Amino acid sequence: MSARYIGLLHPGTMGISIAATAQRGGHHLQWASAGRSSATRARAQQFDLVDAGTVAGLCARCDLILSVCPPHAAEAVANEVAAHAFRGLYVDANAIAPQRAVRIGAALAQAGAEFVDGGIIGGPAWEPGRTWLYLSGPRAAEVAACFAAGPLETRVLAGEAGQASALKMCYAAYSKGTTALLAGILAAAEQYGARTALEQEWDQDDPGFSARAAQRARRSTAKAWRFAGEMDEIAATFRAAGLPGEFHAAAAEVYRRLAVFKDAAEAPSLEVVLAALRARP
Amino acid sequence: MSARYIGLLHPGTMGISIAATAQRGGHHLQWASAGRSSATRARAQQFDLVDAGTVAGLCARCDLILSVCPPHAAEAVANEVAAHAFRGLYVDANAIAPQRAVRIGAALAQAGAEFVDGGIIGGPAWEPGRTWLYLSGPRAAEVAACFAAGPLETRVLAGEAGQASALKMCYAAYSKGTTALLAGILAAAEQYGARTALEQEWDQDDPGFSARAAQRARRSTAKAWRFAGEMDEIAATFRAAGLPGEFHAAAAEVYRRLAVFKDAAEAPSLEVVLAALRARP
Repeated sequence: MSARYIGLLHPGTMGISIAATAQRGGHHLQWASAGRSSATRARAQQFDLVDAGTVAGLCARCDLILSVCPPHAAEAVANEVAAHAFRGLYVDANAIAPQRAVRIGAALAQAGAEFVDGGIIGGPAWEPGRTWLYLSGPRAAEVAACFAAGPLETRVLAGEAGQASALKMCYAAYSKGTTALLAGILAAAEQYGARTALEQEWDQDDPGFSARAAQRARRSTAKAWRFAGEMDEIAATFRAAGLPGEFHAAAAEVYRRLAVFKDAAEAPSLEVVLAALRARP
Repeated sequence: MSARYIGLLHPGTMGISIAATAQRGGHHLQWASAGRSSATRARAQQFDLVDAGTVAGLCARCDLILSVCPPHAAEAVANEVAAHAFRGLYVDANAIAPQRAVRIGAALAQAGAEFVDGGIIGGPAWEPGRTWLYLSGPRAAEVAACFAAGPLETRVLAGEAGQASALKMCYAAYSKGTTALLAGILAAAEQYGARTALEQEWDQDDPGFSARAAQRARRSTAKAWRFAGEMDEIAATFRAAGLPGEFHAAAAEVYRRLAVFKDAAEAPSLEVVLAALRARP
């Protein structure tokens, strides 16, 4: 397989790990520095990504563009690429509703590009067997081949574009949904003066449960600002399937209240997390 | 401690097990047959509960009345007792919001009764160490003493009436809330054709997870008709604490769709459960 010119939007902590896997396969990675933060620039420079300057530059120079960004930004990023009449292969790897993935694919098709739908399960891909990029759509296998060198793992799903996003939504519905639920329950218990009794009951059923619940709530705070948008996407996914979206509307609200911890130097104590949740918006 | 005359409203599968524990302690158990089902009558007869005929009869003959009924019926049951000017001790052991427990207590106090708030965690109490009756309110210890013979376990919480209900709400918020969430996720995955891939991903993280999730969804169907009301109570509990009630509004909707299985001879297959969830109301 020949080396490809791959544009990454954007080199965040997840995106840069995916870029690193593609580089190990001999591909050329580019990014677009316009409007990005100094942290993003530092990551791109550390991994020798070539700076195409703008999204327009990236569209001109690359035959594959990979979008790895917060869910709430996914459609705007895709629309900007479509506006530059990109005619290569566009991969959206974001945590978005399958309906949105299909809509993005249609916008890109109209601009002359082809589309592959993706969904990432796991954290940044620095070790084998830990992070999976699911892919769906006619050219999914071709995209998977770009990452064959690992450590990112790929799986191609049968069926149309939207399948990878649906899987990602359903998976995160439980993992991030239950973290938000636990945080909400702990805050409610605190409000009623019942937290200690609840933790005892939990630990009686499953030793260590309450400590793990507290850790999950605390650790979610750093990423809560983007989990909120992901929960909105899951709510939309459920509703489009005729199922109640309120589980994740509530989870989105929990993460919105925790978004204040975005730039915190370290994870706040559980007491501080619960105080933030109990402060009505 | 002298033998008490305890009235049970009503001898369901949970209530009869609690009555049996009180009988082992030498207490006299009564019930009120008016309007109850033949299954309830059979349970009451099997355990030699004396039939006081009506709630009025029970109020006249008993010094302690214990309410163990579906959450949606709890306040009506209490109000009927209050209407008969019961002047003994009333224990509400139902899965209701603490605000509702406090309101029930106030209605009974106005009628001349005293109130203890309860919450049951676990299934019917036929073995030690499996089922806990939490109690709160000034006379909670006196109620706990009625059950000292076991196998029902009791715990008295410090603080006012409402504490036991708050604990029960927070506990069920996770246990029954996540069962409903799992059922909803499986139905969404089925709708998008992503269920097999989701189950593989779950089992890769935690072997056997998808089988356990399916079992939880299937087994919840028999009790879904009363879980719906319990989820409504948890939603109210969250909202009164300034936290999002939507997690359990969604769980209530899931259980409402599963309420069709109330009288099923056996647990439906997962496919049948998911079809019921996907049938829009």
